[in-house]
Amino acid sequence: MGGVHPPISRTPEPPYTAVIFTSTRTPDDHGYARTSARVDQLARDQQGYLGHDSAHEGALGITVSYWVVHGAAAAWKQVAEHLLAQQRGRSTWYADYTVRVATVERDYRRPATTR
Amino acid sequence: MGGVHPPISRTPEPPYTAVIFTSTRTPDDHGYARTSARVDQLARDQQGYLGHDSAHEGALGITVSYWVVHGAAAAWKQVAEHLLAQQRGRSTWYADYTVRVATVERDYRRPATTR
Repeated sequence: MGGVHPPISRTPEPPYTAVIFTSTRTPDDHGYARTSARVDQLARDQQGYLGHDSAHEGALGITVSYWVVHGAAAAWKQVAEHLLAQQRGRSTWYADYTVRVATVERDYRRPATTR
Repeated sequence: MGGVHPPISRTPEPPYTAVIFTSTRTPDDHGYARTSARVDQLARDQQGYLGHDSAHEGALGITVSYWVVHGAAAAWKQVAEHLLAQQRGRSTWYADYTVRVATVERDYRRPATTR
């Protein structure tokens, strides 16, 4: 999730699902970067995935992923390799985190573009 | 929004409103840091404000603010000084941005805490 940033995610007309993941990291990597890249790739291959944006500043990280419906996000949560990463997250990588599942009802973008 | 990070936002039981602001910045500050700090303080004083989290990585920024209802977020959008900042944002600070207004329906936190 580091390095050069792609443009911010484009999403279809609302409604769609947003999963807001806010975390603070523990010190040191402990295999985080490698797993994070792998989990990113897995998410992209997941049915109903629309995109995600992620920024890290100091210990704080915010990742928002977008899904066609809540069920697609829930299915992703249960993918085996992702479950392992979540377990590792709880035990090792994150000091603190919050996951929020939301329905996006309106959005607007500048510069205005066709979707 | 830079410097030492406070802990991630605590919010009440869902439902509540999330405004997800994703942006890419233009180069150079152009008064952004000063205005950003001022606008942060104004938001905190706004009725219905619950908290916000913000992370910037390279040109990409993600700020998620939380509000008791959509109306509180809409009222904040119309506050005069904030309107000026939005105008400046469109003309100068942001290369690209997306605002998403969402209803948070579920959340969970680790370590588990009382709200």
